[in-house]
Amino acid sequence: MALTVQKYGGSSVANAERIKSVARRIAAAKDKGDRVVVVVSAMGDTTDELIELAYQISENPDNRELDVLLSTGEVVSSTLLAMALHHMGYPAISLSGAQAGIKTDSAYSRARIQGIESRRVIKELEKGNIVIVAGFQGISEEMDITTLGRGGSDTTAVALAASLGAGMCQIYTNVDGVYTVDPYLIPEARQLLEIGYEEMLEMASYGAKVLHPRAVELGELFNVPILVASSFTDSPGTLIHGGVSMEVRNKARSIAYDLDVAKITVVGIPDRPGIAAAIFQPLAVAGISIDTIVQNASINNITDLTFTVAKSQLGNAMEVIKPIADSIGARECASDSKLGKVSVIGTGMQNTPGYAASMFEALSEKGINIQLITTSEIRITCIIEEARVEDAIRALHRVFELDIAK
Amino acid sequence: MALTVQKYGGSSVANAERIKSVARRIAAAKDKGDRVVVVVSAMGDTTDELIELAYQISENPDNRELDVLLSTGEVVSSTLLAMALHHMGYPAISLSGAQAGIKTDSAYSRARIQGIESRRVIKELEKGNIVIVAGFQGISEEMDITTLGRGGSDTTAVALAASLGAGMCQIYTNVDGVYTVDPYLIPEARQLLEIGYEEMLEMASYGAKVLHPRAVELGELFNVPILVASSFTDSPGTLIHGGVSMEVRNKARSIAYDLDVAKITVVGIPDRPGIAAAIFQPLAVAGISIDTIVQNASINNITDLTFTVAKSQLGNAMEVIKPIADSIGARECASDSKLGKVSVIGTGMQNTPGYAASMFEALSEKGINIQLITTSEIRITCIIEEARVEDAIRALHRVFELDIAK
Repeated sequence: MALTVQKYGGSSVANAERIKSVARRIAAAKDKGDRVVVVVSAMGDTTDELIELAYQISENPDNRELDVLLSTGEVVSSTLLAMALHHMGYPAISLSGAQAGIKTDSAYSRARIQGIESRRVIKELEKGNIVIVAGFQGISEEMDITTLGRGGSDTTAVALAASLGAGMCQIYTNVDGVYTVDPYLIPEARQLLEIGYEEMLEMASYGAKVLHPRAVELGELFNVPILVASSFTDSPGTLIHGGVSMEVRNKARSIAYDLDVAKITVVGIPDRPGIAAAIFQPLAVAGISIDTIVQNASINNITDLTFTVAKSQLGNAMEVIKPIADSIGARECASDSKLGKVSVIGTGMQNTPGYAASMFEALSEKGINIQLITTSEIRITCIIEEARVEDAIRALHRVFELDIAK
Repeated sequence: MALTVQKYGGSSVANAERIKSVARRIAAAKDKGDRVVVVVSAMGDTTDELIELAYQISENPDNRELDVLLSTGEVVSSTLLAMALHHMGYPAISLSGAQAGIKTDSAYSRARIQGIESRRVIKELEKGNIVIVAGFQGISEEMDITTLGRGGSDTTAVALAASLGAGMCQIYTNVDGVYTVDPYLIPEARQLLEIGYEEMLEMASYGAKVLHPRAVELGELFNVPILVASSFTDSPGTLIHGGVSMEVRNKARSIAYDLDVAKITVVGIPDRPGIAAAIFQPLAVAGISIDTIVQNASINNITDLTFTVAKSQLGNAMEVIKPIADSIGARECASDSKLGKVSVIGTGMQNTPGYAASMFEALSEKGINIQLITTSEIRITCIIEEARVEDAIRALHRVFELDIAK
């Protein structure tokens, strides 16, 4: 019998009515004769509310306790979903991450799944139960509850699909699927029916919020196709998989953006070995995530180093970086917190000249100044003024003909 | 080193400020050098809110799922309390009922503790941690989460105190201790500094809400003294223990009452063996709890049977009882839903004549009609009109001189 793994996000289970509606979708899958495993996020804003509660107690809540606290959100929604299925006459059982055998390391708040001991899930499936697994959480070797951090429930779902040998992982969310660009911003945005893992990974990493890059990576690693679709409509969604046809791949596919970009430039650094480590090691110790790093070509053994951080971390980063800049003899530290990031993504760009030039030209025509450029084989990213990001997206969407189905 | 077990109720941890205040009390106990185990209830109305959520999903929520759902309330408060202690610089760890080794049977929503596997608690105490245990919950042999039902967190605390060999179990709540009668009703109510297990058990069973009878029974069984005190003040509280002096015991000690009383009388029953079973067996099957049962002396082999139920169960009980009354040839079924129950309690009443007479006389002087009478060795209970309960309490409190410290 086929096995279906579905995941429902927080907005899909935000209240009793929506939970009942999700239960009807699950029941429909079960009616097809499938064995069904469902991963569920916490209801609506529950996680944020629990975090707020923790911060009312302490500005620096203990990591272990915070993970136990947050894990209750998914336990609540999973039990309610199981109740809704019972109410409809479908046998169902909720399992916590620990009961479902999600084994993780002990890195609280950002634990990594080390393996899945799926005995209990299989036992419940064999009894005929629909198994509802609380997402976002696992259990460490010391039998303590951990949470997986951002994108945790998506990751739980893909990991379960991989471990149970499901043919697909269905991620139900509040959007219809993956678009060429944010449809709230650009009405001409077009939904993609399929997309490759790598493209999706770049999109997710560079600002598209529909699916977390961790889940995409896991899907690619275990070759689990991931369907992203709406839990509110019956639209077909977007299938993320490895078998995307060459024809479809042969072009720019989408535009991602991110408005949470601040830049720090350390100006006039003596260019000698060990400088990069001297700068980035203390930032890592301070828990500051660095995004893009660009180092200019050295002139007279003097170089500039620029990197970007989230806006909320700019203050901390500057505090860490200033004394270091002084100690290594840099001339100054400059920062800019009003930046954004625009990326054009597509495996079709690989080995195909002209995409970068077209992108730069399109921005130039709109009078948009490019501050930093970074690229991967299937992505070109420009960091520009935050206020011009929307103009840039609009221009690029048109130039690369993303509004036209091909 | 001495071991202290404390329990804090839902109103004591209803918000972040109160949780911090409770943490300060716990820290003070720890400062005395004691090893400290704390049992905590869910914050404020959390449990009621979760129940409401479940009933929005289904009018008959699955028992197993409901227990998992409700157990999250105590997990939340226990993690927040641990965070508050961390914030004050005290090492602390929260444990779920399962992690604390509270082993129960599988009777969801009213599980009984079968034993405590206290290895983890002891390990954490030996590490120097204050151990915060989520109350009201345990784990069945099948590794499923259970809840203990009413009075669950009190029961967890006393059971832990017994199993860990603590000298006392301290129950902190929103009242100063045990009173001669409800102080909200009778301003002359006097706080008792100590009281015996049996008296407390009768009081708890007959309407005093300060402590659940299960916890008192467990305290008596394992000879664990229980201190009931306020978490908001520094009043000394009331010690429930087995060593209460004869002098103190030698009188009526307190008055309990309960306004949730409805009465059913089956009139004109042929008095033959098996009749009581024929009536009460179906009520038990329907899940209706019977409180007092009184059968009148049989006249001409015809008898009347009267029993009381909670008001909310009267409708159900009448539906069950009417066809049975017909089938056994009873004349009629009458019910009255506007009743209350008043009890005078005290070990001093044992083997001492005159208490019952004084009680009946006091009620008679006030023109209060007694509908039913039941007694134990240390308690006399009268069921009377609900509207007269307050008058009755007032009169009895005075007649038995409960307002005067002796």
